[in-house]
Amino acid sequence: MPNAPADCDVIEKTSTVDCTLNYRVDGPSDFLFQIHALEGMDQKVIRESLDIVPPLPHRVYADPTLNHRFLRLHADVGDLTLRYHAVVQRRIERVEAMPAFVPIAELPDQVMHNLMPTRYCESDLLGRAAYKLFSHLAPGMPQVQAIVDWIHDNMDYQIGSSQNTTTARDAYLQRAGVCRDFAHLGVTFCRALNIPARLVVGYAPFNEPPPDFHAVFEAYLGQRWILFDATRMSPLDQLVRIASGRDAKDVAFATLFGPATMTSMAPLISPAAGEPAS
Amino acid sequence: MPNAPADCDVIEKTSTVDCTLNYRVDGPSDFLFQIHALEGMDQKVIRESLDIVPPLPHRVYADPTLNHRFLRLHADVGDLTLRYHAVVQRRIERVEAMPAFVPIAELPDQVMHNLMPTRYCESDLLGRAAYKLFSHLAPGMPQVQAIVDWIHDNMDYQIGSSQNTTTARDAYLQRAGVCRDFAHLGVTFCRALNIPARLVVGYAPFNEPPPDFHAVFEAYLGQRWILFDATRMSPLDQLVRIASGRDAKDVAFATLFGPATMTSMAPLISPAAGEPAS
Amino acid sequence: MPNAPADCDVIEKTSTVDCTLNYRVDGPSDFLFQIHALEGMDQKVIRESLDIVPPLPHRVYADPTLNHRFLRLHADVGDLTLRYHAVVQRRIERVEAMPAFVPIAELPDQVMHNLMPTRYCESDLLGRAAYKLFSHLAPGMPQVQAIVDWIHDNMDYQIGSSQNTTTARDAYLQRAGVCRDFAHLGVTFCRALNIPARLVVGYAPFNEPPPDFHAVFEAYLGQRWILFDATRMSPLDQLVRIASGRDAKDVAFATLFGPATMTSMAPLISPAAGEPAS
Amino acid sequence: MPNAPADCDVIEKTSTVDCTLNYRVDGPSDFLFQIHALEGMDQKVIRESLDIVPPLPHRVYADPTLNHRFLRLHADVGDLTLRYHAVVQRRIERVEAMPAFVPIAELPDQVMHNLMPTRYCESDLLGRAAYKLFSHLAPGMPQVQAIVDWIHDNMDYQIGSSQNTTTARDAYLQRAGVCRDFAHLGVTFCRALNIPARLVVGYAPFNEPPPDFHAVFEAYLGQRWILFDATRMSPLDQLVRIASGRDAKDVAFATLFGPATMTSMAPLISPAAGEPAS
Repeated sequence: MPNAPADCDVIEKTSTVDCTLNYRVDGPSDFLFQIHALEGMDQKVIRESLDIVPPLPHRVYADPTLNHRFLRLHADVGDLTLRYHAVVQRRIERVEAMPAFVPIAELPDQVMHNLMPTRYCESDLLGRAAYKLFSHLAPGMPQVQAIVDWIHDNMDYQIGSSQNTTTARDAYLQRAGVCRDFAHLGVTFCRALNIPARLVVGYAPFNEPPPDFHAVFEAYLGQRWILFDATRMSPLDQLVRIASGRDAKDVAFATLFGPATMTSMAPLISPAAGEPAS
Repeated sequence: MPNAPADCDVIEKTSTVDCTLNYRVDGPSDFLFQIHALEGMDQKVIRESLDIVPPLPHRVYADPTLNHRFLRLHADVGDLTLRYHAVVQRRIERVEAMPAFVPIAELPDQVMHNLMPTRYCESDLLGRAAYKLFSHLAPGMPQVQAIVDWIHDNMDYQIGSSQNTTTARDAYLQRAGVCRDFAHLGVTFCRALNIPARLVVGYAPFNEPPPDFHAVFEAYLGQRWILFDATRMSPLDQLVRIASGRDAKDVAFATLFGPATMTSMAPLISPAAGEPAS
Repeated sequence: MPNAPADCDVIEKTSTVDCTLNYRVDGPSDFLFQIHALEGMDQKVIRESLDIVPPLPHRVYADPTLNHRFLRLHADVGDLTLRYHAVVQRRIERVEAMPAFVPIAELPDQVMHNLMPTRYCESDLLGRAAYKLFSHLAPGMPQVQAIVDWIHDNMDYQIGSSQNTTTARDAYLQRAGVCRDFAHLGVTFCRALNIPARLVVGYAPFNEPPPDFHAVFEAYLGQRWILFDATRMSPLDQLVRIASGRDAKDVAFATLFGPATMTSMAPLISPAAGEPAS
Repeated sequence: MPNAPADCDVIEKTSTVDCTLNYRVDGPSDFLFQIHALEGMDQKVIRESLDIVPPLPHRVYADPTLNHRFLRLHADVGDLTLRYHAVVQRRIERVEAMPAFVPIAELPDQVMHNLMPTRYCESDLLGRAAYKLFSHLAPGMPQVQAIVDWIHDNMDYQIGSSQNTTTARDAYLQRAGVCRDFAHLGVTFCRALNIPARLVVGYAPFNEPPPDFHAVFEAYLGQRWILFDATRMSPLDQLVRIASGRDAKDVAFATLFGPATMTSMAPLISPAAGEPAS
């Protein structure tokens, strides 16, 4: 959950999402999208629309546990355009300064799996490194803050330095990556320190091109999920959440089965009319 | 689901599970076990008991989707023994000879994630290898059968050749592993060919020591999950299922947090009294 | 050594090499080149010239064992152009149809290290795979021919599929690569089967753009080095050899230390005037 | 070269090496040993003897460049014992406090290859990590000293944590290893910082069992090779050198081809009679 500024306990923000994705389809292909704003947690979708050109039968369903939404469709040869528009209201609560570390025994059952290594977050392989780097700190928030600082200070943000298959281990070794890699490494270090963590993707404003979806991470502290962004590229209170998941595979904005290629993307977000620009 | 012999459509079997796990605990530790027989699918737990020595507060809960059960407990310094006993009845349906490949567009929503790569099943990395090895075959059952044959013929079953962190890619490279690695590789090749697949663990009789939990895999064909065992070490119709999951991390029989060590294990299974020995 | 056609024991060929390399140097940089045609083995350099623009102090020295030549120079900010021109005569002996496998005990001392794994040829990791794929064949030539066939049939030649750091293991896993990767995999399989092998780079004519240096491999059979090209992209009898080495690191055409970037390359080769075009 | 204490410029030491290796040979096998004390650099072999039981034809030859010696032999089924005995005199010169970094342009030709990545020293993969960790220091000795400190402080020396195939990258990731891994990581970081480095193996006294060969590394500074030991387990001035090489593959004390197994080893070293015990 985005964190409100220190001087107020709750703020509300409304944002407008305007996301366009274009594909060239060279043969029958199936698509699985996650581009709908999350309905739930601290978010309320005021209104939304989805346009698919050409019009195609499709299906939207929600994850039974976390409520993020999937869009499935099948397309034949030709161009394909998706446009998703939404107005989303967020209620941002201030995070207490030092939420408590939650001992394993006190973690909720459904959070336990967020301690486990996943495809892109090999916390089993980076356990000793995490211990060497962060075990001298008090468990919980001091460690997560040190993780965010370490990633920010020791990793180069470099577009093109990583690929779809790049994992936290790879990023840690090459000391470079993009937002997704920074978030994966944050998740990985947290899990290695017995702090449940997960990846979060959403819409976020960037000062720098190119527009893209944003990936950050959440750690479970003080019996709640708290957002962190090791890239420090976009204010967390402006993020419109799409989904949370184990890692990027769980929350990819698009998974393609078949000979299709994305030709352009523009996942834009702005303050809703009447809102301050931040 | 275990597959009945060819000459009958349904058979019923009753098995007795007698599982003992011993640990030495050198400091406060948390445990997450998955040792309960699955209640559901083709299985019915007739009766069961769990003894924990010394007696400790614990908690058993079921996965909301797949219904397998977890056991959580916290232990302090000392020895710890778990004994799980169960009588389980299974209803084994014969698998039709050639269940149909299910096109992506016709897969149930909740099965889609079983197409994705996971920590130990990097189907994104082995995609081209799977294609080279199996794409000349008709999609679906012929491919899965060829996968099972390939693994059986090209991998050495060798205790000690793999570790906790060994993945399908590692096993494929080193051409050796144990049941868990064989199953991971089966899962991985299936997913790479757009066939949903998952890991299954359970109790199974072995002719050869040492007794251990068994890992096999399931592929989604003909709109159902069908069991396969590339090790061919134990008849599938004698498997008592504990859990299904994305890979070994989802269904580990024990996950330890803290300075504890397993000193011995004996996950035994036998035909229930009055049942034929096979 | 390139292999003469079956109907004659020795042929002679003369080729003209015309190699141009262009760099942009953004700060003081050191260069280590290997672009000189080999003087020795089956090659004789009739004449050659090297132009460096701007003219810079430089140094050419030969490897004491294998005789390939290195060029070292230091450049400051600005553009840098190298042009190497040579006329090279090769004497190509026919390889006997089935040169004998050389048992380890009969290998010359100086060849022993060509059995060892190297940075890009991890024969220690691919040992069991090599054994599974090729151990049913008679040792020596039948195995090497099967290796070449396997690589040609099971690997995709795909420009852009590999990088500087790609190893034989990586290429084997991803089932794709370029000539260097094909040659590394050939070397790796040979070494895993106790056949000494090494990488060879040189100038070769291609029908397809872009012009590039070529990498092939040599196996030690019948007490001599015999050339193989798993890409089958260029006739071996037209290769002008630059160097042999343990793997690509030993024989890189250019190694850069400093902020310099190659802007273009044209390592061309053609039959010398008066020679038939193939 | 081992480094003399600060208060004298040259000291001489004499050591006695007594190395026994036992093998069980289950089928015809070839062996390549490197157990002879180096004759050259700062060492002089006063006398030596080699006993092979049963007596077998064998062959000792020296590397043409670095002069370390190889022993080759072929053995048939049965037990095999090697005993190598030597008295070695070393002349240990004091290393100047701050030997100068040697710019690439001033490196001797024959040292250039010690800048390249090798099988177990992937300096190409750890380049950015080396830069992040050590580039703020003055080039040369300050960096190498910081590398030794970093390895000593951040890696766990743990017997059994690594295998034959473990590389510097693996050791860096898992933050654990043995002397060979510590030395490989030192070599790797040096090369990544454009400091030539190589692995050195030899006989060294340890306070702790089990007796084993020792691996340390050399960096090229002040136009000479200087020894470093990141394990700090044995005084460098007591090391009797066997060989230097690119990495462990170049200088393995034994490489086996065939079904043979080492049953025990005892590479002992002690001060020669009349020498002080340290």
